Amino acid sequence: MRPFLSHPFDDDKLKEECGIFGVIGVADAANFVALGLHALQHRGQEAGGIVSYDPVEGFNNAKRFGYVRDNFTKADVMATLPGSLAIGHVRYSTAGTKGATAIRDVQPFFGEFAIGGCAIAHNGNLTNAAQLRKELIGRGAIFQSSSDSECIIHLMARSMQKTLSERIKDALRAVEGAFSVVAMTRTKLIGVRDPLGVRPLVLGKIGDGYALSSETCALDIIGAEFVREIAPGEMVVIENGTVTSSHPFAPAKGRFCIFEHVYFSRPDSILGGRSVYETRRQIGVELAREAPVEADLVCPVPDSGTPAAIGFAAESGIPFGMGIIRNQYMGRTFIEPTEQIRNMGVRLKLNVNRALIKGKRVILVDDSVVRGTTSRKIKDMILDAGAAEVHFRIASPPTAWPCFYGVDTPERAKLLAATMSEEEMRDWIGVDSLKFVSLDGLYRAVGEAQGRDPKAPQYCDACFSGQYPVAPSDQIAQGFEMKAAE
Amino acid sequence: MRPFLSHPFDDDKLKEECGIFGVIGVADAANFVALGLHALQHRGQEAGGIVSYDPVEGFNNAKRFGYVRDNFTKADVMATLPGSLAIGHVRYSTAGTKGATAIRDVQPFFGEFAIGGCAIAHNGNLTNAAQLRKELIGRGAIFQSSSDSECIIHLMARSMQKTLSERIKDALRAVEGAFSVVAMTRTKLIGVRDPLGVRPLVLGKIGDGYALSSETCALDIIGAEFVREIAPGEMVVIENGTVTSSHPFAPAKGRFCIFEHVYFSRPDSILGGRSVYETRRQIGVELAREAPVEADLVCPVPDSGTPAAIGFAAESGIPFGMGIIRNQYMGRTFIEPTEQIRNMGVRLKLNVNRALIKGKRVILVDDSVVRGTTSRKIKDMILDAGAAEVHFRIASPPTAWPCFYGVDTPERAKLLAATMSEEEMRDWIGVDSLKFVSLDGLYRAVGEAQGRDPKAPQYCDACFSGQYPVAPSDQIAQGFEMKAAE
Amino acid sequence: MRPFLSHPFDDDKLKEECGIFGVIGVADAANFVALGLHALQHRGQEAGGIVSYDPVEGFNNAKRFGYVRDNFTKADVMATLPGSLAIGHVRYSTAGTKGATAIRDVQPFFGEFAIGGCAIAHNGNLTNAAQLRKELIGRGAIFQSSSDSECIIHLMARSMQKTLSERIKDALRAVEGAFSVVAMTRTKLIGVRDPLGVRPLVLGKIGDGYALSSETCALDIIGAEFVREIAPGEMVVIENGTVTSSHPFAPAKGRFCIFEHVYFSRPDSILGGRSVYETRRQIGVELAREAPVEADLVCPVPDSGTPAAIGFAAESGIPFGMGIIRNQYMGRTFIEPTEQIRNMGVRLKLNVNRALIKGKRVILVDDSVVRGTTSRKIKDMILDAGAAEVHFRIASPPTAWPCFYGVDTPERAKLLAATMSEEEMRDWIGVDSLKFVSLDGLYRAVGEAQGRDPKAPQYCDACFSGQYPVAPSDQIAQGFEMKAAE
Amino acid sequence: MRPFLSHPFDDDKLKEECGIFGVIGVADAANFVALGLHALQHRGQEAGGIVSYDPVEGFNNAKRFGYVRDNFTKADVMATLPGSLAIGHVRYSTAGTKGATAIRDVQPFFGEFAIGGCAIAHNGNLTNAAQLRKELIGRGAIFQSSSDSECIIHLMARSMQKTLSERIKDALRAVEGAFSVVAMTRTKLIGVRDPLGVRPLVLGKIGDGYALSSETCALDIIGAEFVREIAPGEMVVIENGTVTSSHPFAPAKGRFCIFEHVYFSRPDSILGGRSVYETRRQIGVELAREAPVEADLVCPVPDSGTPAAIGFAAESGIPFGMGIIRNQYMGRTFIEPTEQIRNMGVRLKLNVNRALIKGKRVILVDDSVVRGTTSRKIKDMILDAGAAEVHFRIASPPTAWPCFYGVDTPERAKLLAATMSEEEMRDWIGVDSLKFVSLDGLYRAVGEAQGRDPKAPQYCDACFSGQYPVAPSDQIAQGFEMKAAE
Repeated sequence: MRPFLSHPFDDDKLKEECGIFGVIGVADAANFVALGLHALQHRGQEAGGIVSYDPVEGFNNAKRFGYVRDNFTKADVMATLPGSLAIGHVRYSTAGTKGATAIRDVQPFFGEFAIGGCAIAHNGNLTNAAQLRKELIGRGAIFQSSSDSECIIHLMARSMQKTLSERIKDALRAVEGAFSVVAMTRTKLIGVRDPLGVRPLVLGKIGDGYALSSETCALDIIGAEFVREIAPGEMVVIENGTVTSSHPFAPAKGRFCIFEHVYFSRPDSILGGRSVYETRRQIGVELAREAPVEADLVCPVPDSGTPAAIGFAAESGIPFGMGIIRNQYMGRTFIEPTEQIRNMGVRLKLNVNRALIKGKRVILVDDSVVRGTTSRKIKDMILDAGAAEVHFRIASPPTAWPCFYGVDTPERAKLLAATMSEEEMRDWIGVDSLKFVSLDGLYRAVGEAQGRDPKAPQYCDACFSGQYPVAPSDQIAQGFEMKAAE
Repeated sequence: MRPFLSHPFDDDKLKEECGIFGVIGVADAANFVALGLHALQHRGQEAGGIVSYDPVEGFNNAKRFGYVRDNFTKADVMATLPGSLAIGHVRYSTAGTKGATAIRDVQPFFGEFAIGGCAIAHNGNLTNAAQLRKELIGRGAIFQSSSDSECIIHLMARSMQKTLSERIKDALRAVEGAFSVVAMTRTKLIGVRDPLGVRPLVLGKIGDGYALSSETCALDIIGAEFVREIAPGEMVVIENGTVTSSHPFAPAKGRFCIFEHVYFSRPDSILGGRSVYETRRQIGVELAREAPVEADLVCPVPDSGTPAAIGFAAESGIPFGMGIIRNQYMGRTFIEPTEQIRNMGVRLKLNVNRALIKGKRVILVDDSVVRGTTSRKIKDMILDAGAAEVHFRIASPPTAWPCFYGVDTPERAKLLAATMSEEEMRDWIGVDSLKFVSLDGLYRAVGEAQGRDPKAPQYCDACFSGQYPVAPSDQIAQGFEMKAAE
Repeated sequence: MRPFLSHPFDDDKLKEECGIFGVIGVADAANFVALGLHALQHRGQEAGGIVSYDPVEGFNNAKRFGYVRDNFTKADVMATLPGSLAIGHVRYSTAGTKGATAIRDVQPFFGEFAIGGCAIAHNGNLTNAAQLRKELIGRGAIFQSSSDSECIIHLMARSMQKTLSERIKDALRAVEGAFSVVAMTRTKLIGVRDPLGVRPLVLGKIGDGYALSSETCALDIIGAEFVREIAPGEMVVIENGTVTSSHPFAPAKGRFCIFEHVYFSRPDSILGGRSVYETRRQIGVELAREAPVEADLVCPVPDSGTPAAIGFAAESGIPFGMGIIRNQYMGRTFIEPTEQIRNMGVRLKLNVNRALIKGKRVILVDDSVVRGTTSRKIKDMILDAGAAEVHFRIASPPTAWPCFYGVDTPERAKLLAATMSEEEMRDWIGVDSLKFVSLDGLYRAVGEAQGRDPKAPQYCDACFSGQYPVAPSDQIAQGFEMKAAE
Repeated sequence: MRPFLSHPFDDDKLKEECGIFGVIGVADAANFVALGLHALQHRGQEAGGIVSYDPVEGFNNAKRFGYVRDNFTKADVMATLPGSLAIGHVRYSTAGTKGATAIRDVQPFFGEFAIGGCAIAHNGNLTNAAQLRKELIGRGAIFQSSSDSECIIHLMARSMQKTLSERIKDALRAVEGAFSVVAMTRTKLIGVRDPLGVRPLVLGKIGDGYALSSETCALDIIGAEFVREIAPGEMVVIENGTVTSSHPFAPAKGRFCIFEHVYFSRPDSILGGRSVYETRRQIGVELAREAPVEADLVCPVPDSGTPAAIGFAAESGIPFGMGIIRNQYMGRTFIEPTEQIRNMGVRLKLNVNRALIKGKRVILVDDSVVRGTTSRKIKDMILDAGAAEVHFRIASPPTAWPCFYGVDTPERAKLLAATMSEEEMRDWIGVDSLKFVSLDGLYRAVGEAQGRDPKAPQYCDACFSGQYPVAPSDQIAQGFEMKAAE
């Protein structure tokens, strides 16, 4: 039933928990949503769902575990999703949910209200969901999922507003945290970003219709034209070919997630007017300036380290080469693996290009270090292949704090950088040198020429700085200790 | 049942039809074979099979459609394959076979002979299989598969030799064409290469045991040490920790398949003492020398064009950049795709990094051109993204002749280079320039400083030159016309 | 996904929509529930669900389409249902639900309330569910299923009572119609029957624990001792080995469904203190008295007509014989049948014992006639086999009115007896004679020596009489016309 | 993959191992074969296969584990089996075969010979198969299955005859044992029975075409007219609407399997000109005469004991009643059952009709006793329900010898009657009386007014008498001891 039972090898990356996509005004809208979700698969690989609306067939939905391409490409599935309006969602399911019930947690969620039906899909995380949930249950709400996003539906059900879009505003004003939302009624496609705009959401135009997407790469796949980003705190309602914008929240300065640039988003997406690929390449340039080292080869840890490695090589003049080869047939996961397979770890996914590495001083460029376990294994592989020296260069600052805004992070104690200095990390991983790009270097790479503004940081960088733009109240209630003010 | 029903997007590459792997003298040998086949998955993605032998449980086998990682990692499947001796096979199934019967065509094949059981797996193609099959049926053989490789089993059954290894020799002396074979009896692991050594086969050592593999990358994954290549025309019999070599065929000069260097083999494998990655990088260097062009960006067609693009960029001094991004969640195929999906073509797999490409003169480096259809689509994508110029550089000579030695090639009339000159191809694809590396340039890149020896070519290059080292007799009987002598 | 897509051959029986079972105070309670549901499979064959509770693992559930024996016997499924308290449900899904969402409609339903979790399973039908649903949605309830039974959960959520059993009372006092309910909290197993006791519910004792079941046959299978029926209007709460009884509703005289005796219940169950088998046999005796005919053979329409045929044969002295043989390998349904299969109809399920039938005057005894289509086909088969005469005797009065209390009946216009007299039916079916047992004869067979009390009928016999003990208000709102008072 | 992994509850019946069916001269012949096999499902429930031939599409086949109705009713499967000529087979797989390979053992088998293709399906057992197999392997044959029937294909391949029907004769003259065979070439449907005619085979006419079937009930389902039985030792070849008969074997007196009448065949089939139902009813009459007992109720062990119970009741004047009710939703088997399910045994399948049994002296009529384990459990159930006395009457003589002609029997030591006298059996089962019909009584019931002819028995009754009409040479070679001459 559930194709993804274990993740033995990917525990060393932060994981975006969701991608969202919606389209209105095109025939067979669900097919476009499926394509869009396929392009957003990197934001959530475990399950996907699509809701469509057709005047005759009403609202329909399909939810499946597994890749979009394995489910939402099938004619029999897509035939159940007619209509010219549809939204969808891909998700990475968090550890706590149990097998048998988890399909219920797959979005979009749907509510049949007295004033009509509404489906909603959400990227982000509500930091007061536990409190809201408790309160809603006390008032008679029956929750069907373990997902915090279901709160939004119940808040809408209790709103006294006469239109669904007003009810969405009511509901979202009650929640805290980070959220980008796509929703649909029988006639409207709706998009909203939280006041800080932590998670991305973009608007595209396709024929006479419109699309909303987490990233621009998903507009490309359906041949939609990129119109603009939805602004932090903005709501757009698209109906009959018209886009209406409103601003339901108190005004605030945006704090977009800087880790979207570092790792989450696809390199061919454009965020905040900048190419992600170019930003990553530029991080490599910054790294080469901040942490140069004499070596024979700049080698990316594939595939996410590649743009920064290209930048590092170009800036340093050291040749770029593919010293580590990725097995293209390696899915993320195995079903019921044997013990032996479980123990193979990273070797199933990566192999060293021994002839290239042998005898060389190698600079390995990776995007981030989370637990550090994979870094250690890669170092072992490189040394086994006969490298003379191994230098790690990391295209992000040390990840020392958990994210509460829609990213799956280990508890703080398991983050290598939360418990070790850079030197201790270097020794633990066992390399000749280890350097992270500075927070200012990262800000420069995303285009802030003056680096980070410590008074009013331009981005959410809580995972690096420990400065949370929205106090995570549920987590604090459960004992999480915020960083002491400096 | 059969997960791979159509291949809408990959019709523009030549396809290796098989990978083989065997191991003896290690506990749970089938697990090692599964890992080896996983590393060889690029040689055949449609189905795989493993046979193991255990003194108590006898010979056992499992055959499955789909990826190795989806089948031969499961504890319940692997539990049916006990023993310290096992061989396996991955295959790309050719078009002709029908769904219901095709699992029979999955190797290894097994024969129970009067003198004991023997399993055999084969990479290559027998060019006199049709004749042999007809003759064997006339003598009472019942074929169970449509695979030509089954002839070997029936030839063995009719051999009067007293040992299975002698019967294998008898059988292989009767066949023509290209073959690398791994076979197993109750006590022996056997490897053989045809007299010309067209297909690869290497020997590795693991603990007290040994492994045979199509490529060295599969030795790496199990932690085996690469010992040496099996020589053209050599047979090795491994029993009780001892490797015995013999040469059952008339001596001949080797003619290894040069396309293994160009595309089939993994870049981290070592063929003929050379790193495949380094050879491909060197082809890029040769290309940059032979066909320079002024441009702003060297961009690989991912992933196979990357090493050559790195070489081209290094030699030409033009910056290397990832102008085309590959969707990592794109499998090769879809099950029952909708019409809309079918029409999406290459866009499902590749997206242009628009911000990088825009306004630039782009050199696209690809490994080969077969039908040319994908090249055309990629060119369209690049131009749509605003490239100023598009120059194609191909890291192999024009592919103008079909392969009959174990590679799935379109019929000759569908090979672009069989019907057009380089200029016609350039116009048909619609690019500013199109250049292929010369045959001599390719030979230089694989280490032949003097280029190709026209009197006695060092490799099999029939797909480029039309000079077939073994006359394809079945195909000639069916009307294939060899190239006229020059 | 959904194993049961069509029902080409069984459209000519009324169908019970549910069976319910619960057990408390035994290890691995879910296994007992699975066995009980297997014994109740005739009450609902399309899907089943089980919820269990364990102090450590909390509430767990599994829902599956298909037979109990194909799902809830598997070790991997049952391992997800730990604990010593569990309830379950089998259902026949009504026509309206759509494939993708229907698993949501499978009971038990579960609600997490502020005062704890509660699961509930329901046999029957609520005749004011549409009104309740509308009202609840207006007050902010989010329905997850198309099942009317979900109303009960939402009514409980809105109750202000401090205990879950009091909330169940609140909820059930608000509903109208027929219902037998089993429910569970973390510590209690609860059973309730509606004031008229239309649907059955019995109490059994197993070891130190207790079981609740739709029928006694399900107590037999787990080796439980039959204690007593739950009385109409009674609620039992079982906790810590103690059964506490209460009567939450206004007192009323019971009106048990008489069709349970005729067809729904299993012949080895005991209802109202009477063996169902014996009652059916006695109906045959009454029929033989009321509608004798000279003939050579009394032949049941298998399997439901067998007990009445035995009674008819014994009373009439005409030999009993199996003139129609049932194919034991005929499931109820096919997945995607070919057209030819679809057209085979009843022949796939039944075959005539030609040698026995030939030349004989045959009395066919069937339990009921709904649309009459199957009766016609059986008559054709019997005549084709050479019967001299065919006489139909039906072990129930003409079914002329739909049931709104938990039975799937065709709309009234499709009930043969709603539009034809007995003689018209005889001619339409094409038999030599057709007789139904009288309503009084049926009452005598169930033990009412004086027959039916027209002032205060002892049973619900609305399907025969058109006299509905509870006005079906939703249906009346949708245009259903009650029988005019006589 | 394999739906039937265990048979916890059916180990107490002999099992027919095969049913065969073929049809020629009708459009979509495979659909008719599927229907025929569905009607023959009782002869083999574990797997089925169909081969069809179409002039354009050639020979095609499909083989599946599981019921015919679950596989060969699906449009996608049947679409792969075009043509107006097809044969099929259902089988009960014997214990020895291993999961992964067993689909190979499913018939029909197919051979591509120099003179054309031929498919063959076989009901029965070859008693010299082991010797033949060894000899064929020595001569170079490669066996693909563990099925003895594959010998026939290899014998055909080695025959020098010019036509396939002559090759079939050659092959069948070389085998010993019991066999009914249907075979097909591109133009012919062929049927053969062994010289003794141990297994049944009948000819039917459908439209302009013909059908061959193990039993007449399968002719009924497709609407074919029963023409005649194929005679012992006869071969029929049907081509272009003409049936040609020949007699390839030395003449012999027929010895049809008497157990087909007792249990294997369906009651609605006609064997040797007699209704099976009528024969079984008559066995009950004989039993009532041979072994009368005072009692209150004659109760069949469902379903196979029913006809004999009807006969016993009619003859004795004791009322017939259904004291044991069968669960209609009980398939034969479970997939991976839990331990608890495994221990439930017969209770999952049968329940006592307690109200009917209580206080009564009950005569239980069953068709046969094999190991006796089920008889014991049924006795327990009947006594638990309060029966005053239990008398077993068995509608066959004691089963004391294994069958080697196509029936799955336990080894001799496990047959209750092989080690105990009738009285010992009565005590071991624990009933008030136990009586078997005499061998002469059985012969009288099948129409032999004088009973069994001890000099030249009219039937094969080896399972009762130990007199084997064909010496089982393979089994003797393995140590089986024939009964000493009397």
